[in-house]
Amino acid sequence: MLKIKRLAIDTHPENTAFLLRHGNGYSAEQFQALRKIRIGSETSEILATLALVDESEWLAAGEIGLGEQAFRRLGLPEGAEVVIEQARPPVSLEFVRRKIDGDTLEDSEIVAIVRDIAAHRYSPMEIGAYLVACAGFMSTQETLSITRAMADVGEKLDWKSQLVVDKHCIGGIPGNRTSMIVVPIVAAHGLIMPKTSSRAITSPSGTADTMEVLANVNLCARDMQAIVSKEHAVLAWGGQVNLSPADDILISVERPLRIDTFEQMVASILSKKLAAGSTHLVLDIPVGPTAKVRSQSEAVRLRKLFEYVAGKLGIEINVVVTDGSQPIGRGIGPVLEARDVMAVLRNDADAPEDLRDRALLLAGHILDFDPELKGGRGFARAMEMLASGAALEAMERLIDAQGRQSEKFTPGEFTHEVCAPLDGRISMIDCHVIARIARLAGAPMDKGAGIDLLHKVGEQVRKGEALYRIHAQSETGLGFARDLAGEDSGYEVLR
Amino acid sequence: MLKIKRLAIDTHPENTAFLLRHGNGYSAEQFQALRKIRIGSETSEILATLALVDESEWLAAGEIGLGEQAFRRLGLPEGAEVVIEQARPPVSLEFVRRKIDGDTLEDSEIVAIVRDIAAHRYSPMEIGAYLVACAGFMSTQETLSITRAMADVGEKLDWKSQLVVDKHCIGGIPGNRTSMIVVPIVAAHGLIMPKTSSRAITSPSGTADTMEVLANVNLCARDMQAIVSKEHAVLAWGGQVNLSPADDILISVERPLRIDTFEQMVASILSKKLAAGSTHLVLDIPVGPTAKVRSQSEAVRLRKLFEYVAGKLGIEINVVVTDGSQPIGRGIGPVLEARDVMAVLRNDADAPEDLRDRALLLAGHILDFDPELKGGRGFARAMEMLASGAALEAMERLIDAQGRQSEKFTPGEFTHEVCAPLDGRISMIDCHVIARIARLAGAPMDKGAGIDLLHKVGEQVRKGEALYRIHAQSETGLGFARDLAGEDSGYEVLR
Repeated sequence: MLKIKRLAIDTHPENTAFLLRHGNGYSAEQFQALRKIRIGSETSEILATLALVDESEWLAAGEIGLGEQAFRRLGLPEGAEVVIEQARPPVSLEFVRRKIDGDTLEDSEIVAIVRDIAAHRYSPMEIGAYLVACAGFMSTQETLSITRAMADVGEKLDWKSQLVVDKHCIGGIPGNRTSMIVVPIVAAHGLIMPKTSSRAITSPSGTADTMEVLANVNLCARDMQAIVSKEHAVLAWGGQVNLSPADDILISVERPLRIDTFEQMVASILSKKLAAGSTHLVLDIPVGPTAKVRSQSEAVRLRKLFEYVAGKLGIEINVVVTDGSQPIGRGIGPVLEARDVMAVLRNDADAPEDLRDRALLLAGHILDFDPELKGGRGFARAMEMLASGAALEAMERLIDAQGRQSEKFTPGEFTHEVCAPLDGRISMIDCHVIARIARLAGAPMDKGAGIDLLHKVGEQVRKGEALYRIHAQSETGLGFARDLAGEDSGYEVLR
Repeated sequence: MLKIKRLAIDTHPENTAFLLRHGNGYSAEQFQALRKIRIGSETSEILATLALVDESEWLAAGEIGLGEQAFRRLGLPEGAEVVIEQARPPVSLEFVRRKIDGDTLEDSEIVAIVRDIAAHRYSPMEIGAYLVACAGFMSTQETLSITRAMADVGEKLDWKSQLVVDKHCIGGIPGNRTSMIVVPIVAAHGLIMPKTSSRAITSPSGTADTMEVLANVNLCARDMQAIVSKEHAVLAWGGQVNLSPADDILISVERPLRIDTFEQMVASILSKKLAAGSTHLVLDIPVGPTAKVRSQSEAVRLRKLFEYVAGKLGIEINVVVTDGSQPIGRGIGPVLEARDVMAVLRNDADAPEDLRDRALLLAGHILDFDPELKGGRGFARAMEMLASGAALEAMERLIDAQGRQSEKFTPGEFTHEVCAPLDGRISMIDCHVIARIARLAGAPMDKGAGIDLLHKVGEQVRKGEALYRIHAQSETGLGFARDLAGEDSGYEVLR
């Protein structure tokens, strides 16, 4: 028996345990060679990797030191007695091996894999093996199974309504902040739209990052329930609610391996929507040469997969394929995007038209879900909500309900203008390059960092005229962004 | 700049660095979120995972603590100044991603992958992704490329001879210790046979484990050169020489994922042989229902792959397909196998015939490589070397040259006999089950642990007659082995 000692060592995302090499009556190396050990009492257990300690200032014989993750996940007090033993590999790894061999898996086998992943029983190596084995070799049925299994293992929200609407946009288009316009329009009309969003992972800003410029977004499930019951809607960060936790774990492996299959995308998005209690979903697939989806035929394949899986899950879905050839709106980065959003909601004369049109299109499709609005009257109703100021009012109420942001964020004061190299017409804006420049400037961590696009595709510019302005909150950030923009501005200007 | 502090923490097999969460002017979490950081000076660099420390008794601001592996691999003294930064992912990961997408890789791309793996630039997750992407999707040309690349990244032995013979047996057959008989026969004849062997990974004993019962096997390349120049041969553990280091890293991921493809097997074996300087190779493929290769058609496919790759590498190969339906010899486990080997070499009347015959067969094929022995006279010459006692003499000289084992090992004194459940004929012995029982008894760590087979397939036994005897060096080991044998003896006796 070993006594637990809590160590102030953060080994995110892994569980790590520390054991003296000598003095415990174990062959500690043999345990370490196992790569993963089981640490358990009668009531609780975790798997962890083992580090061996050769000096004893902070660890004594008879103690097992637990890093923060391991200590928290085991959930036992300091001094509690545990045993360590060889971790039995999860049974579901057998199914992963069959998948590696090219087999198609049964529903129950996929459920077992997802449960073990959500319970942190898989190493990143094993998760990677599963994902690579699936990449390109996943049947529609398997995609459905994994989506349902992923939604089932986490928390689920229930809004006690037959009509809970949601929207999602396949990422990759900088500035595409339609949710913050669509949600108040739909709320003003009166449908229930509890929107959970992510923070940016690889982009310059996620909806949660941009909304945070205006209001608190760190809401737990109970906060969300209270706000939705009053305002019909919410614009929250999804990270406070444990929706589809397996998805977050899978993403942590997909990202470094850059595994980005349609099947995994469908499972990721729909599992979160299902767990969030959405019944009706409008899905926006922007298509463009530098977007995630590159061609119409790809978009059709993706649409069909979404429709099949959503249908089987009982989610009514409307897939809208849109123009993803360039960024939407003018601002990129939290503060600049929030500025655009509010300009649209206020009906400002100079509000970015493309952002307004895209938001109205999507809001219209969502309102079409309302049986009260017969015959495609959703779009007209969305325009009405926006033009009348009802959407702006709904947004202000939402901001107050979530908690108005006390800090006043402004665009970064270190600026640099990137100018046209010649007289001509802008023929292309590369979404990837623009996103990278904005991130180097400091977005989304520096809320005021980002890019303000002064001209868009199709516009005529004169040599030396500013194409866009980089904003940063530090000289360093500005330098990084300016250097990349110097190598590749992301703009193509043709004579 | 951070100052290196060496920490007595063994984080095998990973590089781990420890940094105070606060006080270094870094956003430490952001570094940790990268999963892998680069730690470097002008002269040296490593990649490592980062653990964050919240208490400072053993780590100060301005210090970066390095675990043993990281400290050793970085190779800088304590107090040396380093910077940490985002690890640029190895460029070759792009090729892995293309492989995941189903592409066939170029030679130069595979070389880049293998180099980065050997230099510890890949995480287990990334190695797993590569292996799974390859499993079942590797062309013959790719197999050749990876074999050559693996041999090229490590140390290479050169014996200054046109004829350096070697043998290899595809594993999975307990007791198959032919190398320790073949090598002295070939050495007695006078060919050069520097044999490097592995220790057991999943089996009850490797050739190196069994040879160690008789002699020192921990020989460096220089020791081996000296012994071979005098005795024509050596029977050493390969672990002291850095042959095909990428292979060891790949195996550390293949094993837990149980990836066991023919392509990877060919690359693993032939890369080691090429690096070991072998010019002529006899390869034994035992075929049987519980062996690694289950059918003749599988054996043919494997033989062809070995012949193609070996041919392109300039290794002359002779593939021998043998009976792998049951264990070879009587003893299983280091001491008991060494006993059998010496009995064969001494021409004892009760030496296991199957072990002698198999060794003579393989030795004969090896001697056929000798241009002096025309027309398949190798087998007769092998018999001559064994019968005359020349092979025994060569073995004794080899033992003396390597360093005779001072410790006297004996079979474990805790024994248990497993008996026939009925009168009948032994129809089958399961190699897997026998191997697992021997391992549970303590082999190969306890040299005297293992199994002594008293009857083999085809023999008649009476109910209650002992089929085999388990040896262990502890009551615990015997208990584990006895329990498993009670569930499944591994023997099938039919009336």
